[in-house]
Amino acid sequence: MNEDLRIREKYEEIRNLLNEKEYRALRGMLNDMLPYDISVFMSESQAKERALIYRILSKELAAEVFAYLDGDIQHQLISSFSEAEIASVLDELFLDDTVDFLEEMPAYIVDKVLKVLSKTRPETRQMINMFLKYPFDSAGSIMTIEYVSVNQNYTVEDAISKIRRVGLNKETVYTIYVTNENRILEGVVSLRKLLFANNGDIIGHLMDSNLIYAYTNDDQEKISALFRKYGLLSLPILDKENRLVGIVTVDDIVDVIEEENTEDFEKMAALRPSEKTYLKSSVWDLAKNRLLWLLVLMASGMLIGLILGAFEKALVVGSLVVFMPMITGTGGNAGSQASTLVIRGMALGEISSKDYAKVLWKELRVALSIGIILGAFNFVRIVIQYRNIEQDPVKIAFIVAISLVFTVVAAKITGGMLPMLAKKIKVDPALMAAPLISTILDAVGLVFYFGMATLVLGL
Amino acid sequence: MNEDLRIREKYEEIRNLLNEKEYRALRGMLNDMLPYDISVFMSESQAKERALIYRILSKELAAEVFAYLDGDIQHQLISSFSEAEIASVLDELFLDDTVDFLEEMPAYIVDKVLKVLSKTRPETRQMINMFLKYPFDSAGSIMTIEYVSVNQNYTVEDAISKIRRVGLNKETVYTIYVTNENRILEGVVSLRKLLFANNGDIIGHLMDSNLIYAYTNDDQEKISALFRKYGLLSLPILDKENRLVGIVTVDDIVDVIEEENTEDFEKMAALRPSEKTYLKSSVWDLAKNRLLWLLVLMASGMLIGLILGAFEKALVVGSLVVFMPMITGTGGNAGSQASTLVIRGMALGEISSKDYAKVLWKELRVALSIGIILGAFNFVRIVIQYRNIEQDPVKIAFIVAISLVFTVVAAKITGGMLPMLAKKIKVDPALMAAPLISTILDAVGLVFYFGMATLVLGL
Repeated sequence: MNEDLRIREKYEEIRNLLNEKEYRALRGMLNDMLPYDISVFMSESQAKERALIYRILSKELAAEVFAYLDGDIQHQLISSFSEAEIASVLDELFLDDTVDFLEEMPAYIVDKVLKVLSKTRPETRQMINMFLKYPFDSAGSIMTIEYVSVNQNYTVEDAISKIRRVGLNKETVYTIYVTNENRILEGVVSLRKLLFANNGDIIGHLMDSNLIYAYTNDDQEKISALFRKYGLLSLPILDKENRLVGIVTVDDIVDVIEEENTEDFEKMAALRPSEKTYLKSSVWDLAKNRLLWLLVLMASGMLIGLILGAFEKALVVGSLVVFMPMITGTGGNAGSQASTLVIRGMALGEISSKDYAKVLWKELRVALSIGIILGAFNFVRIVIQYRNIEQDPVKIAFIVAISLVFTVVAAKITGGMLPMLAKKIKVDPALMAAPLISTILDAVGLVFYFGMATLVLGL
Repeated sequence: MNEDLRIREKYEEIRNLLNEKEYRALRGMLNDMLPYDISVFMSESQAKERALIYRILSKELAAEVFAYLDGDIQHQLISSFSEAEIASVLDELFLDDTVDFLEEMPAYIVDKVLKVLSKTRPETRQMINMFLKYPFDSAGSIMTIEYVSVNQNYTVEDAISKIRRVGLNKETVYTIYVTNENRILEGVVSLRKLLFANNGDIIGHLMDSNLIYAYTNDDQEKISALFRKYGLLSLPILDKENRLVGIVTVDDIVDVIEEENTEDFEKMAALRPSEKTYLKSSVWDLAKNRLLWLLVLMASGMLIGLILGAFEKALVVGSLVVFMPMITGTGGNAGSQASTLVIRGMALGEISSKDYAKVLWKELRVALSIGIILGAFNFVRIVIQYRNIEQDPVKIAFIVAISLVFTVVAAKITGGMLPMLAKKIKVDPALMAAPLISTILDAVGLVFYFGMATLVLGL
């Protein structure tokens, strides 16, 4: 919290300097701040202030700040820039940040930027064209081409002088990639290892040829699993011919992991995933992302209504109706507990689709233990609490108790199995979460409940 | 997939070499493998094979593999080790890995290990005692003390020779920490910067004194937010007197992020968070973690039953009962959509508790748009589909439609506000998710529904 306060005070100072038009002092102050903190201040400012601050920043810092800004603010800034200003932003921006930025811009901005690039840096424009062709959320779309590669025959001294010459940012120089004349990846060597070696040592002898790598078309979820498993700082990305074309660095993976988790949270709550943050989404965007699933699930709710209609005699027994919310609620909750554990286990690679027998057997036993406890508890409770109702309280208690056991077992098995089945047929398991499971359990639980009631009460 | 196959083939080979007792060839092969891959093979092996493989590994590799193993396998291995063997594992293990391992062991193993340490490395034993005192999930409990620190007056050459001398692992030498004689942190300098500097340059002039840091007692969630925001590779951790006591590295943060997300997923599904993976948890562990919340939520379900009992005349109208699942289901789903977005937004720092008015206003408008669409749709459907029922279909359709609008609005507002309220009163917002929201909405929605029915139908 202390830290937050300190930054808030700085923001106050910036605002004062802006109001007093003390641009020189402002520039000095901004140059001492972290790019992320400047981007937050700009996000909270008016458009005019924002452009002013941006122009005060040194060219290099401006590019770093730009990469941190949200798409809509980047959009608004770029719209107000001259061609020369655009060229100057692009000069300093890393290629992967440029691609990230272009992917979020409307077509006319992309055109404008690419036109500037064609004039000033045609080779970059070509690279960008290639990047924009990689599938969304693939390794190709998140990788960077700024890395250091050397030949096997280099000495340690050659390698260090190459690092100095190309001078990239910190994440990308700590692993050096060894490639042959056809750009085929042959090994990696860490900067740390170079530091411990003698100047004349040959890279080919120092390098580690036990490689971990991925391909441009691999999904980013697979990439982040590799980082997690092996504790990587960076990962080389190859094309189909095994040529090194880029690397993914760990700082981008931290974002990928949060993005993938957010997507799972959204899908598991019957929301269509959205790239925008909550506060930035318009009311209509939010409504649209929620409406489709609500309608689908409501349609199932209507179907349940139709099925219930068949139990006309049981439906009008008031003492049966009062237990409906408890049975559907418990079914939904029990099912979503199981499905959440299985969905999460699969996302983290702890459960694979061949484990279905283990999951089934485990859920069955868990469900029986829980179902019997809940059922027995309710049997006793109902016999005592509802002793004065019209129907035989023991019969009602029995119907509720046996329905609870059945519903919990059905819930745990549906919740455990549906995500695994989804994975098998290549549907995202995260969709088989609470909302869908609850709806299915509403139907299954209530049909059993009213069916049992019709039977036991002889309706 | 290709990659997986390649590893599977290697595992086949290891198994063959083990069966044929070709230990020399096996040792050669294992030395070329990645520690993580060896740990997976060991996890899938029998206890006897496991101990055999472990003893074949070189001392350094053995320690790396050990750090990757799950707690139960570490436990089983350590139990079978002599004191000399334990000492040899501890010799090579990084301090943070030793602490992670001890935190998962039963008391008698901890005692055994600490006894060995007292004899062989008393100073390490002291450090461990300090680490074990940091709160669970605090920066102190995840940090490592293996880092390089230098004095302001060092030259670049001095610094590089110190790095070479202490020779730590790759994540921990890429940022060098500058401290004064009282161990107060004064700046940081990246290894990359040293590489670009001249041997005689003074660290004090090169260092960046615009520091990002945290304290030993800070929660790991706060730490991972700092990594995400600033794209860090490592973060210095200070004690209360601002002395540098350790660093957290990004590879550990990747694990922390997944851990925190798993905890949120579990809480949001009414599960008590568990450290064990699904397949490793016993049936009784799983049942225990689910039972408490199911009981609490069922108790609310019982309460709803009691309240419904008050509407005795409305309860026995069959054409009202058939719409109950649709109303409760839609309420629960609409509420959990809102709560998921707000919980996730707060976890990622995109929504803060002072945004409650914005959230309220947004949810109100979203809810009205959705509620009116769903309500209108159902009004028309019911009038047509249920035209032959006993009651006036227009009245029934009106009751259902208005209840849907009310339930959706109540759901969105409850779902949006409860997590923010929870944060305010220092309860984890993740608890205000689908299960609790659905239960509340069951009550609110049905009371409105049957109340409205009593009124409109004049029951």
